[in-house]
Amino acid sequence: MKEYFIQHAKDYVGKTVTLKGWAYSFRKGGKIWFLQLRDGTGVMQCVVTKFDADEASFELKNVITQETSVMVTGVIKEEPRSPGGYEILASKVEVVAIAEEYPISKKEHGIDFLMNNRHLWLRSKRQHAIIRIRHTIIKAIRDYFDDRDFTLLDTPIFQQAATEGTATLFETDYFGEKAYLTQSGQLYGEAGAAAFGKIYCFGPTFRAEKSSTRRHLTEFWMVEPEMAYCDLDMDMDVAEDLVFYIVSQVLEHRRSELETLERDISKLEAVQSPFPRISYTDAVKILQENGVEFEWGDDFGGGDETIISNQFPSPVMVHRYPSAIKAFYMKRDPENEKQAMALDMLAPEGYGEIIGGSQREDDIDALISRIKADGATEEDYSWYLDLRRYGSFPHSGFGLGVERVVSWICGLKHIRETIPFPRTISRLNP
Amino acid sequence: MKEYFIQHAKDYVGKTVTLKGWAYSFRKGGKIWFLQLRDGTGVMQCVVTKFDADEASFELKNVITQETSVMVTGVIKEEPRSPGGYEILASKVEVVAIAEEYPISKKEHGIDFLMNNRHLWLRSKRQHAIIRIRHTIIKAIRDYFDDRDFTLLDTPIFQQAATEGTATLFETDYFGEKAYLTQSGQLYGEAGAAAFGKIYCFGPTFRAEKSSTRRHLTEFWMVEPEMAYCDLDMDMDVAEDLVFYIVSQVLEHRRSELETLERDISKLEAVQSPFPRISYTDAVKILQENGVEFEWGDDFGGGDETIISNQFPSPVMVHRYPSAIKAFYMKRDPENEKQAMALDMLAPEGYGEIIGGSQREDDIDALISRIKADGATEEDYSWYLDLRRYGSFPHSGFGLGVERVVSWICGLKHIRETIPFPRTISRLNP
Repeated sequence: MKEYFIQHAKDYVGKTVTLKGWAYSFRKGGKIWFLQLRDGTGVMQCVVTKFDADEASFELKNVITQETSVMVTGVIKEEPRSPGGYEILASKVEVVAIAEEYPISKKEHGIDFLMNNRHLWLRSKRQHAIIRIRHTIIKAIRDYFDDRDFTLLDTPIFQQAATEGTATLFETDYFGEKAYLTQSGQLYGEAGAAAFGKIYCFGPTFRAEKSSTRRHLTEFWMVEPEMAYCDLDMDMDVAEDLVFYIVSQVLEHRRSELETLERDISKLEAVQSPFPRISYTDAVKILQENGVEFEWGDDFGGGDETIISNQFPSPVMVHRYPSAIKAFYMKRDPENEKQAMALDMLAPEGYGEIIGGSQREDDIDALISRIKADGATEEDYSWYLDLRRYGSFPHSGFGLGVERVVSWICGLKHIRETIPFPRTISRLNP
Repeated sequence: MKEYFIQHAKDYVGKTVTLKGWAYSFRKGGKIWFLQLRDGTGVMQCVVTKFDADEASFELKNVITQETSVMVTGVIKEEPRSPGGYEILASKVEVVAIAEEYPISKKEHGIDFLMNNRHLWLRSKRQHAIIRIRHTIIKAIRDYFDDRDFTLLDTPIFQQAATEGTATLFETDYFGEKAYLTQSGQLYGEAGAAAFGKIYCFGPTFRAEKSSTRRHLTEFWMVEPEMAYCDLDMDMDVAEDLVFYIVSQVLEHRRSELETLERDISKLEAVQSPFPRISYTDAVKILQENGVEFEWGDDFGGGDETIISNQFPSPVMVHRYPSAIKAFYMKRDPENEKQAMALDMLAPEGYGEIIGGSQREDDIDALISRIKADGATEEDYSWYLDLRRYGSFPHSGFGLGVERVVSWICGLKHIRETIPFPRTISRLNP
């Protein structure tokens, strides 16, 4: 049996079709009633009259409730006054299951109530717009790497070592051993770059963030390319090119969803490559010029990132951070040992960090001495050091946090709406 | 600076380029030596002569070792006798880093040794072929759903309830609460189907499998579509169409990799739709006709699946299993309460189950009584039951295990090679 979906209504004009979905809202009169039917792909106005529909169908107006599941058969017509530009003149309406009184109404609900009902809240137009934009962003990322000869390398979730410090690890018992949930696929990605030249991994990542902020989830998706024979400048080229591609794909395919969210689209259209690239030292000057008390060597807080990124209409890349505040695996600047060959990309409009990356240390002795300085042993990173023993090579990569990009592109105030079922320190359900 | 990759050699004929990679193997003579250079995208024969290369480059033959990282500059020529059809006549060879004696040699190594060196083993031609086919399979799956109006819905990894029984759960401390790693995104996918009509989730999935078999990993990737207004027959249509599409994409894009693996390609070409569909009851007859002592009501073991799937050149779908051996959320057959509206797809050549799915129970009372019979409470599944309270609807879905499909399509004897860094009861490293 052929299936019909509301998003393809323009192909059905003049045809009799059956649409299957849920009652989104209705308006009832004496001889006519209007049902806004949603089927997940769109919303369609259904016109039910005493004249065109059979009596049983017409009388359903007395029992139908919001979110009642329902099938409507009728002829599709163009109707400029209807929300989607089309309507269906119903000959038959069939109820599948009557819904109990729906908890989410038109009135304002508190965020806790909505999050407790996240499984239902996902049915709203606003959430549809966000999840569709998320889908487009993820597809753009995968297409970007697939079209440029990167090999997909799914890195493991269960790991024995920390990549980003031990404070935020989730631990599990693994048949009597301790295993940690991945904070990053990077170390494995480096093995992949030695095997395949250019790889990316893309999966969920975990950090036991004890602070509750509008920028942090405990479970988030991250894409991490890693490239052989690639230095920091080339790394920034790829980061810029990728983010520009993502923005242009959303502008091309998801304009109506951005409008639903009342996003100021001109801010996204203002994103142009090349993106500005400034050193950490220059960024510190910007802060000081803006009256922030900030010393060279400190790490940026969220407020600092906001000030820096507000200077530019496009994302800004800040490079060459103090090595003391960056991870052991980052290469030192050959021109200044106190600087690491690191980059962060900060999104405009105060959204802050969406990418963190670096050129990796390829000198085994430098790496071992830093591992020891961190209190770990050579043995802990034995296979990782092998990548320097057997044909060490210059290489770089970065990680892009999907939810932060969704938050920025959608113009959201909080990251919790960027993923279907968010996980934070205070939320594990639904 | 422009980058050159071996896989695009045909575009470089007559040009002087620099290739960057690692020494895969070499053959040394007095006035000429040959280097097989791998760069992750392919292997290129480099010809180094006293006449064409400078002296320092020529003399590198005395220091170069397997997996030494190296850059070769020269002119690309067509050369039919060369493995890839091209070679580079080197004017300059530069060593980036000399490799220590490489542990993986041409001789046979035991599987434990290779798995302990998985980070290096990935550099071999065989592993390249498998990982590239895996990439093509994953891309085919995503393209399939993206092109058919499915919405991507990333379901959470941290969950509070079990989907597939409590025996195989990994547990973690979640800020003082217990959280479990997802065994399936299905229950969340059902909420998504009510919101978006057709969704898929695709991510890593976890089962603490205590048995060590050639078919099980503790961490594996699964894609799970869920479709509103979809019954078991429509579910089987999608499952069949998806798997046929995957096979045809691999045949179109990865033929040379299948040849590297010495896969009998005719077996894959023999896969034709429609796939056979037989009931569990018919499958039991097949077993009995093949001399297996098997009673209606038992579950199939791996050996049973092998016998059933060996009857057909294409994957076979077995449907309507005994409800007693299937999960609480599966709809009962309206024609026979003892049967669940379940389906498994078994891959040919003895590979067994690659898909499990069902039509879901949409009657809230039936669902509650089965939840209680399983020893759980209504409260445990409170939000899941909401999907029946607010507009219940017929819906179906399935899960396809990526690694099992890779194993079958590549013709592997063991699932451990289907993922870059496999996790089993005895392996958590590298």
